[in-house]
Order: sequence, then structure tokens, then C-alpha cells
Amino acid sequence: MTLYELTGVRAKNLNLYQLAFKHKSKNSENNERLEFLGDSVLDSVVSEIIYKHFPSKNEGDLSKLRSKLVSRNMLNYLASKLGLLQHLSYRATHTTDGLQNSEGNALEALIGAIYLDQGYAPCQKFIRVKLIEPHIDWQRLESSVVDHKSLLYTYCQKENKTLHFVELAEDKKNIENRFHLGLEIDGTQVAEAIGKSKKIAEQKVAKIYLEEIGVL
Amino acid sequence: MTLYELTGVRAKNLNLYQLAFKHKSKNSENNERLEFLGDSVLDSVVSEIIYKHFPSKNEGDLSKLRSKLVSRNMLNYLASKLGLLQHLSYRATHTTDGLQNSEGNALEALIGAIYLDQGYAPCQKFIRVKLIEPHIDWQRLESSVVDHKSLLYTYCQKENKTLHFVELAEDKKNIENRFHLGLEIDGTQVAEAIGKSKKIAEQKVAKIYLEEIGVL
Repeated sequence: MTLYELTGVRAKNLNLYQLAFKHKSKNSENNERLEFLGDSVLDSVVSEIIYKHFPSKNEGDLSKLRSKLVSRNMLNYLASKLGLLQHLSYRATHTTDGLQNSEGNALEALIGAIYLDQGYAPCQKFIRVKLIEPHIDWQRLESSVVDHKSLLYTYCQKENKTLHFVELAEDKKNIENRFHLGLEIDGTQVAEAIGKSKKIAEQKVAKIYLEEIGVL
Repeated sequence: MTLYELTGVRAKNLNLYQLAFKHKSKNSENNERLEFLGDSVLDSVVSEIIYKHFPSKNEGDLSKLRSKLVSRNMLNYLASKLGLLQHLSYRATHTTDGLQNSEGNALEALIGAIYLDQGYAPCQKFIRVKLIEPHIDWQRLESSVVDHKSLLYTYCQKENKTLHFVELAEDKKNIENRFHLGLEIDGTQVAEAIGKSKKIAEQKVAKIYLEEIGVL
């Protein structure tokens, strides 16, 4: 498969694409810087697609949908659909175990390469035409986004348990993750989580507990 | 100050800009969806600027620099430099306390509005010309990025304490934030943190402890 067949773009600077496929096990310059760039370009493109696709959803739901679309799992899945692993160059001594996530990372790096080589609009087109349109089922994606707090309330009601979120500490210096919440079930703390906002911390701690007791 | 003076762009769809300045205390449609979009467009633009400005830095350092540049603190600072608060429309009964972060949020929403109204390149220009070039001191930013793990090692060496990171649980289902690390000082667990990678969790837990003991 040619680069054109893979990406739909006529490469100007081939070096960028070669770099995108250099796994970090290569001691020389590798694809991690391009991955850094591609990760955020993908986020931006996906955000616009979701923003327009769901005109009546609030920002919380949009964030959850975006998280799903750019999750490690999804990126690895999309990269495998493109067959990126066969293009990846890595150290021969590297075990295939160590290549976990490498396909998804290479996809992000490829997006970074297309962005630098072609600009934003062609990169948008690549993401839309090669990734989203053929491989994303919006209805399925939407139904996979779970409100863990609601699920926890439903569970506790059914099981006749009391639940209570407790603020463990508000870390004012740690702006990024300032809310530290505990979850008490029947008066006993069963889980804790840290988040950017109270809402996020609640969702996280609910999810941790639901996974622990096997509901998720 | 006119919208043109504020942004440097000739608005096509004024409604988008009006929406960008509608605080969430307004019951009607507010700026939170635009904030969702602008947040990721800003990330993408800033990532490219950092990628090009620091050609020899690895992706870990680039990530730290980006976090600083798009932190709540920085966004509020940049928004106040633009004087966004005076343009914000919010419920009259809303206390000014509740407006904490609103300026930074409005800046993200404004970026979202410019992006939808004008496209990526003009939005890039706004971020570069109105935010980064006049208000960001690269040297100062660079020196403010701290490697908390190294700082912790130095501290423990000086104070003759032993330190040990312990893996508390690897949450395999929670792909986004799977590393849960504890920090032991002289054999006692003093802090814990969750992160996307082991490196990130180490940095976080080191930072939490250093803040707790007043070193940061």
C-alpha cells in the first residue's frame, strides 16, 4: 500500500512520514514528538466533528464522546484498520509485547506528519474520510458513553444502600486536579478519586467503585 | 473596544461571538459548548507553536510546557490582559465569586467562535498575535516547568530519607488513567496519585508530597 493510498494525500516532505513510523525503540529520532503534535490536532478535529454532529448535547457529554473517540483503545483499533503496524520500524530485539499501543501512537504521529506537511484542512479530511466515516458508528458510540454517577445511584437504590460523596481535600495549588473526593457506601469509604472538577471526580470515583464490585 | 480591536478579525457571524460571552449562569444557551471546542483548538495551535519553538525537546517536556501554557491560571491571566470580563454577560444575581475562571473560560469560547467563524488559520493568528507574542516569556515559562521527581530525589538525599514508589493497583479497565502509584518515605506511605503513565503518576505523587511538606 502506498502512502497515497493510506492517507489520501500527496506527500511533500517524505521525511516527516518516515519519522511518523519510527517507533521509540529506535535510538535515533523517533515518532514521539510528532505523536505529541498529532494527538492535539486529532483532538481539535474530533471536537469540531462532535460539536457539529450533536448540536443539542452539553459540553459534559461532548467531552465524554471525545474521550471515547480518542481513547487508546479506539486509536489502536483505527490504526489496525489502516494496517499501520506493518509500516512501523522498530528495533529488531524489541518484543511485540512492547509494541502495545504503538499502532495507535503511530496513527497520532501520522496525523502530526500530515498536519505539518499539508496543513489543517487536508489533515481534517484524512481524519474524516479515512478514520471517522468508515469506522465510527455514532449510535453505538453514544450508547457506550455511560453516566457512572447515575448508574451508581440506581445501583444503590436497588440494593438499598446509602451513598455519600465526601470532599477529602481541595488541593488549591494543584490547579489541574484539585478535587479529591471519597465515596462512602453505608458510611464506609470504599473508593477515592482526583479530578479537574467535582463532577469529573464524582464520575471517576463512581466508576472505580462500580468496577470493583463488578457492576461494570 | 470593538470586536475587531479585541480579536483582529472581521466577524462574519456575530451571534457566535455573542454566545462566547454568555456565562453559564445565563439559563439560555451559554458559552460552554464553544469553550469545549476552543479548548482543543487552542491545544492544537499551542502544540504546534511549542513543537517548532523547541526542536530538541522531547514529548514529555513539550507536554509539560503545553500544560503550563493552557493552564487555568494562564488562561485567566491572558483573558484579563484582553479585558474579557467586561464583555461577559451573566446573571445579575450571580456573585463575583462564582465568576472565578469565567474569564479564562470565555477566552476558550472566543477561540471556538473565531475558529467556527473564520477557520483554523485566522484562529492561529489570533492566538499567536494577541496572546502568545505579547504575553508569553518563553525563558520564564521554561524555567517554571519543574521535574518533581528529580526534586524529590534531591530533597530525600539531602534529608537522608529513603523513597520508594509502589504500584498500588493497575486498573486495566480504566485505560485513560491506569497507573495508581503510592509514594513511601522511610517506609511509610505518604501520598498517592493516578496517572496515564507510570512517569506521569510519579511526577504527580512527587508533586503532591512536596506541596504537603511545604517544599513547593
